[in-house]
Amino acid sequence: MPSIDICFSPELLPLFDLRGRVAVVVDVLRATSSMVTALAAGVPHIVPFAELAECRAMAAQGYLTAAERDGRQAEGVDLGNSPFGYLDGVVPVAGRNVAITTTNGTRAIHLSLAADAVVLGAFLNVGAIADFLRRQQKDVVVVCAGWKGNFCLEDTLFGGALAARLHPDFDVTSSDATLAALDLWETARADVGAYLLKSAHVRRLNSLESHQDMAFCVKQDEYDLVPIWQDGRIVAAAAPSA
Amino acid sequence: MPSIDICFSPELLPLFDLRGRVAVVVDVLRATSSMVTALAAGVPHIVPFAELAECRAMAAQGYLTAAERDGRQAEGVDLGNSPFGYLDGVVPVAGRNVAITTTNGTRAIHLSLAADAVVLGAFLNVGAIADFLRRQQKDVVVVCAGWKGNFCLEDTLFGGALAARLHPDFDVTSSDATLAALDLWETARADVGAYLLKSAHVRRLNSLESHQDMAFCVKQDEYDLVPIWQDGRIVAAAAPSA
Repeated sequence: MPSIDICFSPELLPLFDLRGRVAVVVDVLRATSSMVTALAAGVPHIVPFAELAECRAMAAQGYLTAAERDGRQAEGVDLGNSPFGYLDGVVPVAGRNVAITTTNGTRAIHLSLAADAVVLGAFLNVGAIADFLRRQQKDVVVVCAGWKGNFCLEDTLFGGALAARLHPDFDVTSSDATLAALDLWETARADVGAYLLKSAHVRRLNSLESHQDMAFCVKQDEYDLVPIWQDGRIVAAAAPSA
Repeated sequence: MPSIDICFSPELLPLFDLRGRVAVVVDVLRATSSMVTALAAGVPHIVPFAELAECRAMAAQGYLTAAERDGRQAEGVDLGNSPFGYLDGVVPVAGRNVAITTTNGTRAIHLSLAADAVVLGAFLNVGAIADFLRRQQKDVVVVCAGWKGNFCLEDTLFGGALAARLHPDFDVTSSDATLAALDLWETARADVGAYLLKSAHVRRLNSLESHQDMAFCVKQDEYDLVPIWQDGRIVAAAAPSA
């Protein structure tokens, strides 16, 4: 039976052997939620960058540029890190590729590339991720982007929610991190938004826009779509053949 | 108001600035539980070592030697890492100093020395630790020894128990790690031993001796004693003057 483990911070990734496993990178607030939303809104592919300057330079190649630093849209780019940037129609996105850089999410992706496959998880697509993982039948490591390397509640809750979806077909008991995330998910699941309002990170994002983002980012199963890393790009994984 | 944060793994310590803070190192199973027990049993001081050979060499200076590797007593030393080694009378310990090395606990202590003070916590002395911290009135970081650097439930639960003791006089809400540990403690507190039986680490320690150790190590407030790092040694902190 494949297992699911959770890495609470990219700083702990050296303790995990990702080879032969599927890495599910999660940055609920807001990088992976926004990337899922972007692909669902018709963006063909996304290229993540560690550095803002590299990201901005992609505009010359016809890319939309999206960048956030410390929770705010960076200067001189088309989009910030809010999923609503791909939904509100202010910037038309369908058919446009996106170059993106974020504080935590991009780093977590780049550190996970030793895995057999790297997919991006969020509450918005948690069911699609669970279905994908059932088809793969490989051990899973959820890689929480965290907040500047620190443990954060929202990514941990995603890990718990995913483990709950995979149980009992995956082993959820061989990792203390997974056991803890499952218990936290049980505490939070009745009202994830209310639970996260106590989180230090969420209180840090104390603008109206941020709270609207959070209310959206905790919705489960909005999109039946799995963003996957392929040849340096994030694309929607092909639907399974019937 | 001073705050309490929790570092879930020594690998995450570079993210914490320990200066001006008190570090509470915890390795419930079993290093810090055993050290508290040793001092309570009349051991004047304990010297922790990273390497087994260094620890063993201290026998020539009259020290009792205690060593565990991967959960078992090492070869050629007087004691393992069980708190009962200091209680069962097989090796008389009162008045004898102890040289100790353990897989996780010693490393966590050495990585915490940038703090203003380093004390050793366990359920056995959680009340004494809380009293000590109230007198200090400094920010606190609980440093979980973890299992080979990985997150573990028992040290996290100690962090939650300590935060619950310090609330509302300490800020327990500015760290997601503390919030998570408090919720896990609420889930587990009615029967900590039963809760930990599901932990991966505890199942790894699957001998009868280990389960006896665990039943002892989850007892709260057995000892009114704070082990503190002083000049390279662990000693009992002086009782507060009346």
